[in-house]
Amino acid sequence: MKIEIIGIEGLPEFGPGADVAEIVALGAERAAEPLRRGDVVVVTQKIVSKAEGRLVPLRDVVPSRFAAEWARAHRCDPRHIELVLRESRRIVRMDHGVLITETHHGFVCANAGVDLSNVAGGEVAALLPEDPDASARRIREGLIARSGVELAVIISDTFGRPWREGLTNVAIGVAGLAPLASYVGARDPAGFALEATVQAIADEVAAVSGLVARKLNRNPAVIVRGLTYDAGEGSYRDLIRPPERDLFR
Amino acid sequence: MKIEIIGIEGLPEFGPGADVAEIVALGAERAAEPLRRGDVVVVTQKIVSKAEGRLVPLRDVVPSRFAAEWARAHRCDPRHIELVLRESRRIVRMDHGVLITETHHGFVCANAGVDLSNVAGGEVAALLPEDPDASARRIREGLIARSGVELAVIISDTFGRPWREGLTNVAIGVAGLAPLASYVGARDPAGFALEATVQAIADEVAAVSGLVARKLNRNPAVIVRGLTYDAGEGSYRDLIRPPERDLFR
Repeated sequence: MKIEIIGIEGLPEFGPGADVAEIVALGAERAAEPLRRGDVVVVTQKIVSKAEGRLVPLRDVVPSRFAAEWARAHRCDPRHIELVLRESRRIVRMDHGVLITETHHGFVCANAGVDLSNVAGGEVAALLPEDPDASARRIREGLIARSGVELAVIISDTFGRPWREGLTNVAIGVAGLAPLASYVGARDPAGFALEATVQAIADEVAAVSGLVARKLNRNPAVIVRGLTYDAGEGSYRDLIRPPERDLFR
Repeated sequence: MKIEIIGIEGLPEFGPGADVAEIVALGAERAAEPLRRGDVVVVTQKIVSKAEGRLVPLRDVVPSRFAAEWARAHRCDPRHIELVLRESRRIVRMDHGVLITETHHGFVCANAGVDLSNVAGGEVAALLPEDPDASARRIREGLIARSGVELAVIISDTFGRPWREGLTNVAIGVAGLAPLASYVGARDPAGFALEATVQAIADEVAAVSGLVARKLNRNPAVIVRGLTYDAGEGSYRDLIRPPERDLFR
């Protein structure tokens, strides 16, 4: 069994209104790696957010008093903090200058996924896509229309996690793939009884893409080829643990 | 850029004393995928624990009163709970019948990584390797001796995590690879300033093994080929967040 992880290199910058599916499909063609049936295309959140115009110039943001005070105490930009709060429905931790929140989607991550960037003319914040599943579905439909093959799409972002050092890429939007695979009650070849096991396939695919789509190269899209997965609508919601089953809230 | 993920299929069962390096190297040869310079070989914890004889028949375990009471209240095996406590240095959560602890290594996971299996003659618990880095180093040395090429080894296990559904494979032992890659203060091609970013490469590689080494097939070893990584001694310790930097304890 073999899986290939193919970075689509040399993609241009994605500006507001960019057609992500078209750019990725053309990039794959140009890389002599045309899309195939069963591929999973992983696209980073950053290009989706840019293409969807989820960019806010910081100069347009008026921070609340709460944001301003915390920012002053922790030497960060109050306008950034203001946007983080606006993108959040709950503050999970707020300490040592770190702000971990639950976004309106239900993701728990640093700064609600709001990244700051310096672009020409000043600092700009990139927000997460408003509905990353809808973004994934649109990209998937575009890729299928252009390539003529069935495939799945994952939008990835880079999250931290408790207890372990370093960030890993996880899935924040899913289309055409069941994000979880169950092995409940099955037995392994030696007859060992397996406990209920639910594997987060979509996060593992996203993590793999993190190995290729490093920050510093122009590889914001990755093809994962040869993976066995259950097709289906799929949703990032499957990857969010319901509060009543989460021991950590 | 392309990475290949090759599952080494058809490996035999690993009993106590099995030479993991020899079995994996032979399996790779037989699969016409001889090891190459720069490969990362990912081996699941289960075969390492079996080969190292980290197996305890439950009938040999006398549970403490604490273990017995909790097991009775939550309808689990008191001998299993006893082993979990013995393998732990701290209880992180103990609720709803779920026992999440910090192992003596410093891993935070369900049941201290102690898995129950039915083998001939009764139930057996498989414990995590005592020193997974040492296990990884031994396997690496064996693989290098047999193949004549420099490579890295990761031992993976399947852990849950807060907030997100489903398990993912992470690295619990590392040899020959720096588990973390830093992008601190760098700039992306568009001149965007990047915040300090430390990526958990070893965990992303381990996640790959979860995509191939599914529970039900005989793929306990996976070759990751074509990955760019920093060689180095490496250690799982790099992947454990120091308590003073961990907001979640």
